Amino acid sequence: MKTIYDWHTGPYPARVRIAIGELGLQSQVRFVSVDLRKGEHKTPAFLAKNYSGTLPVLELDDGTLISECTAITQYLDALKGDSVLTGTTPLEQGVIHMMSKRAEIELLDAISVYFHHATPGLGPDVEIYQNPEWGLRQRDKAVRGMHYFDGMLQQQPFVAGSAFSMADITVIGGLIFAELVGLPVPAQCEALRAWYTRMQERHSVQNRITMSEPAEAPV
Amino acid sequence: MKTIYDWHTGPYPARVRIAIGELGLQSQVRFVSVDLRKGEHKTPAFLAKNYSGTLPVLELDDGTLISECTAITQYLDALKGDSVLTGTTPLEQGVIHMMSKRAEIELLDAISVYFHHATPGLGPDVEIYQNPEWGLRQRDKAVRGMHYFDGMLQQQPFVAGSAFSMADITVIGGLIFAELVGLPVPAQCEALRAWYTRMQERHSVQNRITMSEPAEAPV
Repeated sequence: MKTIYDWHTGPYPARVRIAIGELGLQSQVRFVSVDLRKGEHKTPAFLAKNYSGTLPVLELDDGTLISECTAITQYLDALKGDSVLTGTTPLEQGVIHMMSKRAEIELLDAISVYFHHATPGLGPDVEIYQNPEWGLRQRDKAVRGMHYFDGMLQQQPFVAGSAFSMADITVIGGLIFAELVGLPVPAQCEALRAWYTRMQERHSVQNRITMSEPAEAPV
Repeated sequence: MKTIYDWHTGPYPARVRIAIGELGLQSQVRFVSVDLRKGEHKTPAFLAKNYSGTLPVLELDDGTLISECTAITQYLDALKGDSVLTGTTPLEQGVIHMMSKRAEIELLDAISVYFHHATPGLGPDVEIYQNPEWGLRQRDKAVRGMHYFDGMLQQQPFVAGSAFSMADITVIGGLIFAELVGLPVPAQCEALRAWYTRMQERHSVQNRITMSEPAEAPV
């Protein structure tokens, strides 16, 4: 049984939860809550698991720790064996990794910086340094990012082309975070909004939060 | 023939140049210079190739564009077929992607932000917005990152374990950038310094800058 350290409503944890749902690996993982609001991800005990102090972290049976959503997704996708999320051909792999990274830089990570630096974030006990000006710049970058991804989705059904992939999951994570911080997708981003509606119909996206309940309270 | 848009001394371009050298793919690529000092990576023509306005970018014969060093490395490594840089087993892939991402967050990207925000960077025509306070925070983060990687290299010969990988290349990129900005590796980071000396003995690292000369002036 593998352990996922995460927080059930977190946008980054959502990425790995959606990946697990897409791959059908629910029965192979258990979830352990790390309370972001209490700053449990910044304690020495947790930093020993992930130097960067971020969620989620995957712990394997032998104690190996894998952090970073892209790395965890790559591991799980290879473990399952079909590479449905990270691509099979060199070209698919390259384009999916590019678009997923771009979704981090231009959308998800930008919103995260906005949240932690230009809003109360996780509260004064956790947000011990803030740079509001930088946070606001990143908010504006994220809105531009929404327009960029809208443009891509006017041309193709999924973020990295013709099939659902890790890159879609990263953009979903971005829009989950955007909702949390009250940053709406502009009305004119019709393709992005329509794509997000389709994404929310996927079982993996719908069930991501309740996924951890059976492990916490087995029936 | 594939095209790499880059700048011969850039730390991020170095990552892909080292990957090409490690994979022995020199004869399959040609290099086109994008002059960072003139801000050519921020022109509309270049932004059409890479929305994020960063180097390097790989262009395939059919016009497909792949940016982001991790994505380009993943593509080239899969193309070569042996996955010597990104791992063959799920565990190797996960750990290599994690450590490479960590090297970006904690070292290379942090130094890049320091350079662009708390030093003259590429000059006033290119650095149209700077946030020096944020830049200095990132410099300090990078120095802490050096100590972290030093600790890892006290335990294992390479950044992601027992073999050279993409994660080593990312840390090399970080130390190349550290040299450019005059940020020394602390003397007490003996394992990191010894590792870097070994890395600089690799042909791929030694020849990364001159690699582009034959394509520019074929003999």
